[in-house]
Amino acid sequence: MTPDARLARLSLNQRTTQRWSVAEAVDGCVRAGIPAIGLWREPVAEIGVPAAARLVANAGLRVSSLCRGGFLTAADDAGRVEALADNRRAIDEAAALDAACLVLVVGGLPPGSRDLAGARQRVADALAELAPYARERGVRLALEPLHPMYCADRAVLSTLGQALDLAETFPAEQVGVVVDTFHVWWDPDVWRQIARAGARIASFQVCDFLTPLPADVLLGRGMMGDGHIDFPPLRHAVEAAGYTGDIEVEIFNAEVWATDPDRVLATMIARYVERVLTD
Amino acid sequence: MTPDARLARLSLNQRTTQRWSVAEAVDGCVRAGIPAIGLWREPVAEIGVPAAARLVANAGLRVSSLCRGGFLTAADDAGRVEALADNRRAIDEAAALDAACLVLVVGGLPPGSRDLAGARQRVADALAELAPYARERGVRLALEPLHPMYCADRAVLSTLGQALDLAETFPAEQVGVVVDTFHVWWDPDVWRQIARAGARIASFQVCDFLTPLPADVLLGRGMMGDGHIDFPPLRHAVEAAGYTGDIEVEIFNAEVWATDPDRVLATMIARYVERVLTD
Repeated sequence: MTPDARLARLSLNQRTTQRWSVAEAVDGCVRAGIPAIGLWREPVAEIGVPAAARLVANAGLRVSSLCRGGFLTAADDAGRVEALADNRRAIDEAAALDAACLVLVVGGLPPGSRDLAGARQRVADALAELAPYARERGVRLALEPLHPMYCADRAVLSTLGQALDLAETFPAEQVGVVVDTFHVWWDPDVWRQIARAGARIASFQVCDFLTPLPADVLLGRGMMGDGHIDFPPLRHAVEAAGYTGDIEVEIFNAEVWATDPDRVLATMIARYVERVLTD
Repeated sequence: MTPDARLARLSLNQRTTQRWSVAEAVDGCVRAGIPAIGLWREPVAEIGVPAAARLVANAGLRVSSLCRGGFLTAADDAGRVEALADNRRAIDEAAALDAACLVLVVGGLPPGSRDLAGARQRVADALAELAPYARERGVRLALEPLHPMYCADRAVLSTLGQALDLAETFPAEQVGVVVDTFHVWWDPDVWRQIARAGARIASFQVCDFLTPLPADVLLGRGMMGDGHIDFPPLRHAVEAAGYTGDIEVEIFNAEVWATDPDRVLATMIARYVERVLTD
């Protein structure tokens, strides 16, 4: 089959088809003509990192990202030590999988804490410990600012500007940022921050923002075209900033997860072409 | 009863006790020693503006705000004309009630639209039409940036910085901003923007940010102390910026609404003293 040139930069984030194992997702990408995959650590662990690395290499897929490290806001020593150890393991896995980056979701406020400034400082401190470890292994860390509605419980990193303030204390090839349309589309400052990000952009993820948000707001990520986001201007901005990497589709959505994954891929490809690539 | 000096700046936003009529809320404030009230147009309309104005004046209460005008993003002429007319009525009501400001929730994307920049421009255009009308009637408009999770469906104004960019095109006494802890607490830039706001701060509203967010995310506003927000630093920042006005408690929460309103007021007073006033 001649590869479809329009899909040359498309990547399936594995959570979009979360009932698929790594092997199934790799096969699904090959069947659908998708040249890259964003892996998650949990399904990778089910078969082991070496087996997962062989599967993607044999299929000729790029690994656009490994999701994820992070959760670096623990205020107690034991929690902090465990988080650093787990992130070092994640870095090793990203190296073994030859992933373009390791996505970091930095973590929210510890239970009962209201010290947002302290949590943010602990993220910076932990990153300073992890960045050299990642550099030695050739792994690029990618800080992901999450939508502000997750500030309390998932990520105290809430805007692209804030992520860049943190990333810029390290070399660009060592610490980059994720631009995820769901998380940044509302930000009046996003255009300026994407331009500022430039070579810091380590990952570009797309999915739509749905309303009303579902009861579990983590699952408000929709198929492109089903929500409120105008994708082409964001894609253009990311490209104008110099990003030429993969465009990863990452959807957490109960309805998508209930659908046959091959059909999800077919819809995803159609929507990617219509809604992301076409102005 | 000697008034409690600690409550000198406390205001009950009427939605916190939404089952109460204006008369009941006014009586409740008097019983509880709360010197100010934030009114909503719908309950005011039930008895008429002159009657509501008499009730609050006779009780000796200040009207810290009238909620609300706005919803200025309609893309069609008819919708635009109707919104402007409704906002002029709201301005007239705020003048008759001697409200310290008219809160504007600017509106989300029109149904099916993904043109966020266009919606934001229409807000600016509408404000240019309304500001002179408000000035003539001695009413101060207060732009309320809403949490980014409401960008699509309620307010394309998502940060204090963005609200100030818009407000600053008008004199400060004519167009101010609302600082609502629920909407801004996550913002890494909030300290700089509160300082920048200075005399633009027309209203300071407090309530907590709860997780998990309820199925209707509009109702994720909690009693101070029940969520993730550290209030004193925000109060200090607002005061350092020069704000000496009322501190309004505005809670949308199914559980609070199901509770006897006099008990809600007692809890609100205790939490205000413990969580907002006490460092």
